[in-house]
Amino acid sequence: MQPSRENDFQLQPVAAPLRPHLAVDARRPQKASRDNPVAMTQPTETEMTDASGRQPRARFRPPAVSQVDVGGFWGQRVDAVAGRTADILYQRCVEAGMLDQIDPDRPSPGVRIPFHIREGSAASTVTTQMFWDSDLGKTIETAAYALHRKANPALEAKIDAVVDMYARLQQPDGYLSSWYQRIQPGRRWTNLRDCHELYCAGHLIEGAVAYFQATGKTRLLDIMARYADHIASVLGPEADKRKGYCGHPEVELALVKLARATGKRTYLDLARYFVDQRGQQPHYFDTEARARGADPGDFHFKSYEYNQSHKPVREQDKVVGHAVRAMYLYSGMADVATEYGDDGLKAALERLWSDLTSKRLYVTGGLGPSADNEGFTADYDLPNETAYAETCAAVGLVFWSSRMLGMGPDARYGDMMELALYNGAMSGLALDGSLFFYENPLESRGAHHRWKWHRCPCCPPNIGRLVAAVGCYMYGVANDAIAVHLYGDNTARLEIAGAAVRLTQTSRYPWDGAIALAVGLDAPTRFTLHLRIPGWSRNAELAVNGAAVDLTSVIHDGYAAITRDWANGDQVQLDLEMAVEQVRAHPEVRQDAGRIALKRGPLLYCLEATDNQIGLCRVRVPERARFEPRFEPELLDGVMTLSASVQADDTSDWTGTLYRTEAVKTKTTSIKAVPYFAWDNRSPGEMLVWLRGG
Amino acid sequence: MQPSRENDFQLQPVAAPLRPHLAVDARRPQKASRDNPVAMTQPTETEMTDASGRQPRARFRPPAVSQVDVGGFWGQRVDAVAGRTADILYQRCVEAGMLDQIDPDRPSPGVRIPFHIREGSAASTVTTQMFWDSDLGKTIETAAYALHRKANPALEAKIDAVVDMYARLQQPDGYLSSWYQRIQPGRRWTNLRDCHELYCAGHLIEGAVAYFQATGKTRLLDIMARYADHIASVLGPEADKRKGYCGHPEVELALVKLARATGKRTYLDLARYFVDQRGQQPHYFDTEARARGADPGDFHFKSYEYNQSHKPVREQDKVVGHAVRAMYLYSGMADVATEYGDDGLKAALERLWSDLTSKRLYVTGGLGPSADNEGFTADYDLPNETAYAETCAAVGLVFWSSRMLGMGPDARYGDMMELALYNGAMSGLALDGSLFFYENPLESRGAHHRWKWHRCPCCPPNIGRLVAAVGCYMYGVANDAIAVHLYGDNTARLEIAGAAVRLTQTSRYPWDGAIALAVGLDAPTRFTLHLRIPGWSRNAELAVNGAAVDLTSVIHDGYAAITRDWANGDQVQLDLEMAVEQVRAHPEVRQDAGRIALKRGPLLYCLEATDNQIGLCRVRVPERARFEPRFEPELLDGVMTLSASVQADDTSDWTGTLYRTEAVKTKTTSIKAVPYFAWDNRSPGEMLVWLRGG
Repeated sequence: MQPSRENDFQLQPVAAPLRPHLAVDARRPQKASRDNPVAMTQPTETEMTDASGRQPRARFRPPAVSQVDVGGFWGQRVDAVAGRTADILYQRCVEAGMLDQIDPDRPSPGVRIPFHIREGSAASTVTTQMFWDSDLGKTIETAAYALHRKANPALEAKIDAVVDMYARLQQPDGYLSSWYQRIQPGRRWTNLRDCHELYCAGHLIEGAVAYFQATGKTRLLDIMARYADHIASVLGPEADKRKGYCGHPEVELALVKLARATGKRTYLDLARYFVDQRGQQPHYFDTEARARGADPGDFHFKSYEYNQSHKPVREQDKVVGHAVRAMYLYSGMADVATEYGDDGLKAALERLWSDLTSKRLYVTGGLGPSADNEGFTADYDLPNETAYAETCAAVGLVFWSSRMLGMGPDARYGDMMELALYNGAMSGLALDGSLFFYENPLESRGAHHRWKWHRCPCCPPNIGRLVAAVGCYMYGVANDAIAVHLYGDNTARLEIAGAAVRLTQTSRYPWDGAIALAVGLDAPTRFTLHLRIPGWSRNAELAVNGAAVDLTSVIHDGYAAITRDWANGDQVQLDLEMAVEQVRAHPEVRQDAGRIALKRGPLLYCLEATDNQIGLCRVRVPERARFEPRFEPELLDGVMTLSASVQADDTSDWTGTLYRTEAVKTKTTSIKAVPYFAWDNRSPGEMLVWLRGG
Repeated sequence: MQPSRENDFQLQPVAAPLRPHLAVDARRPQKASRDNPVAMTQPTETEMTDASGRQPRARFRPPAVSQVDVGGFWGQRVDAVAGRTADILYQRCVEAGMLDQIDPDRPSPGVRIPFHIREGSAASTVTTQMFWDSDLGKTIETAAYALHRKANPALEAKIDAVVDMYARLQQPDGYLSSWYQRIQPGRRWTNLRDCHELYCAGHLIEGAVAYFQATGKTRLLDIMARYADHIASVLGPEADKRKGYCGHPEVELALVKLARATGKRTYLDLARYFVDQRGQQPHYFDTEARARGADPGDFHFKSYEYNQSHKPVREQDKVVGHAVRAMYLYSGMADVATEYGDDGLKAALERLWSDLTSKRLYVTGGLGPSADNEGFTADYDLPNETAYAETCAAVGLVFWSSRMLGMGPDARYGDMMELALYNGAMSGLALDGSLFFYENPLESRGAHHRWKWHRCPCCPPNIGRLVAAVGCYMYGVANDAIAVHLYGDNTARLEIAGAAVRLTQTSRYPWDGAIALAVGLDAPTRFTLHLRIPGWSRNAELAVNGAAVDLTSVIHDGYAAITRDWANGDQVQLDLEMAVEQVRAHPEVRQDAGRIALKRGPLLYCLEATDNQIGLCRVRVPERARFEPRFEPELLDGVMTLSASVQADDTSDWTGTLYRTEAVKTKTTSIKAVPYFAWDNRSPGEMLVWLRGG
């Protein structure tokens, strides 16, 4: 079918596979056919108006991965994912037995329950998982971005084979779940609360959109659009449909992506339904539990705060429960708020944002301190050594922050996206792209290391797809504006009202705050260029074609807004002061009391044992300590280190003594700090972010 | 049988039930008979000589619980156990289904494996446990001491019924294990490494000795002596016996108790065999695993360090593995070293002692920081909030310390026994005796509370039996000497070379350091009185019958030794300075860097939220802060509190901010500290031991 006019909404240019080695041009509209039931639409310029006829605010949508080529710092990171991580992810999925679960031509592996005994002869069985479709979805997504970066016919063939398995697995009515079709048949739509059914759909949708954008191949996108149509026929506001939504949010943001890629508003409406139905009474998870003969009170996590369905989302004002679920939910809410221009939803999001960022966030942008609920505990409870701070949660905060920017440039969100990306999220991936953190503590005695894989392997493909897609977080594009959210070497091919805009950033960022931005245009074009002035920069200077701009007069919400008729060859120069700062935490954060963290630009720093031959908690950083930044090209793929002379507790008069009443003596010593994201890439040993201050 | 002369060894007077309401006189030797196969021996005065003919050093053995009546501080605590805990323990054992497991007249409950699923519909089944005999053993032991303190016919009848079940359960060959007879029959002696078979025997032996001492009833003691005889027929150095020992040490120290109570040297020799066989090659746990068709490499905890069998005990010098196992092993080793005058074993114990106390011990006397192995990790790794510091481990340190004192008075051991008893162990029991800590953290955000019971209920009866038996830790008695290890109101009925010695302490200890000690004798008797001069006391004054004693001339190893012809009515006055001290930890203890702990006399202090309306980590205690002790009779059953004016981080200029670069402002505030053992007995809230100093 061709989507009807009524079903249209304004959308981002459909991402085109721009890599030269692919001959397909996915921008060409494709006819709907039996083999290709979902046609790709061209973007329309018609602004969607909502039912009230109100003109919603501008929507800043991200470019596709294929529109931004990154170099410099991020180029190295993306190359690690494209050159190594993408293949590893696929291989680990195979080793875990995932293909046995999804391939309908193989015998079903069946349910095996992981099984632990503390005492006695221990047994632990890793087994089929109800969320494996999601891991494959993210693996496909990472592979898609990797294929855009670097041709890899062997990997592409493997992904095509997985897509083929899903094509054969899909039921005639469109339903698709390897768990409910192969492992627990007959139970579909009976436990949305616990079983990740829509969550899996969401990740496969995201994978499908990405794979289409990277390769132009529509097969998986068709499959997932059919499944999304089926979902919309089963769940929704109509009387004959179930009033459910997923215990693990994700499908909401995925449906928005699908809507943007296909132009079908149905998916957007379904996303909004899921968002607004969450937490309504009678509570769906109660109803559903009773329907399957269970007692709703038997819910393992006791409170629906765990999955953020304890109350309608518009009434929520505390970030609670499972951290990844929270981030994915808020991301979906922000997408819906952006697309519908929904101020009520935006207000709820701002309350939640304020709660997270003023009481429940690590200085790294990590979040969710507790392993028990993989999530939040109490205000100001931010333990460092036992921090769960799941990689996926920081990745989720990048998602949420980037989607808050959909409603307009605001440095609160841009700064946070940058913080979580460079620190709490990126620490989850080894520099060479081969190993993964699940937890991201801010202190280690030397026993915490990245893993090859995990029984619940959500984090590896999540950090993989984030890093490989970093280009699309750098910009936001509206009808008459471009926002530059992140800085660093890159070239972007964007479009404003049909006019191609090429932006080229040249910068050593994040090591240096000098950014040169060149504008490429076929003809002069009027639009507003929004440039983020990071909150961490105490001084910033801006010039357009060599003429200084008075920043105070053009800054709104932390972005400098320059509206003019831009011409080809225009040059923007932004210089951000990037000083070493000692950061303090709110005094109610017990674990950081009397301590300081080192930050320079967007990067948090830490001490590692390999650079500092002293117990790291013996170090005390005086307020007056002067840190010397030095770029070390051979260290950790090239990083800026920070060195200073500080005080250290002396142990020489403690022989054989563990406790004493006499005061501790101190001596002078030197320390060297490295960026937090790069820790645990060398000799194992102690690591510390929060150093003793004062 | 009557034990032969050769089989005799010098032993402590058999504990007599001294409570007036019992007519039985267990001190009267009982004839061996078919119903009573083990005769109780009278003490002999013959000193045992070892094979070499060497005269071993003096042995200081503890009095029985029935010989010391405690009042004052400990009287309150013992009354809580006798009045409440003892009944609760029995009731919880019944509720857990333990009697279903041990009563041969009931159907076997069978094996049910505890079962957990993190995601999805959660299930957790508490079930039959292989170590339940041990919990019943400790419950019987606690009940025994409680019955000595306070008649409780209902409880005594219940314990008699349990004894009757064990009598009916015991096999004709003497074997006795509810797990291997009722739950997993046919597998006895196949997995000493994991299955607590001898550990269970040990705890039932301890219970049997205590129940005999308290009630004069010999039935359980007979049962357990028969079982011990059976064990000695199965395990031992002879060619036809298994070369095994228990993965969880305990039976070693229990066999020494049994030997002392029965006069049978066989049990002592078996204890020594278990101690010395541990860790020998070929490794018994390897041999045993292969014999049951298992791969020794599949051991869940990977290294035999977990159960301290990684090398022969005489070669060990690091405290490693499971903390309770370590403490029980070292206790058994110390008993064997004491009884055999074994200097080689003593040297190994001193190396282990030095390792524990200089690198791996909490300031509370708690130990074993990690939940993963319920034990030790790395040197100086002593996390406060996540401290496992199992109650049983601190109880075990009291056991070990007290047994090191068997080899002679030494304040290193006496001070440690006191520290672990008053702090790390006693915190495990609520003031009213009804609730129990398993973990004993040194910091809490307010969510850590005592439990009603535990799936692995080792700690409740362990702290119960320790507190109820506190009197026997106060003294050590040798042939010609009495050591006073602990101070406090009490009356002790001891015996030196056949002469009765009554010691009466009058003191407000631990709130006050003034101790009056009156000697009661039927006739003047020459012996040495050893009085511990605690290391925490900066000044001590000693007088005998009003005449000052020059301490420097009489102190050896931290004990003042007064040898004289003591006469009835002699008065000893000891005055210990008891100042408030700020304690610092070795700078390599990361978690305590820059922090101080408050200590007065034997007691560690902490801040609790209910006394201090401020986030506790905001508090900073200057070195010059003066703490005012004040006894508050209405607070926490009457405690000495410590109050001072200190500094606190100001939060008033932080509204809405979680991190900032500006320095933190401070203000003056007052704080009040309470003894650590008494925390979590009032409104829930934050607790902190290590306060920010400097």
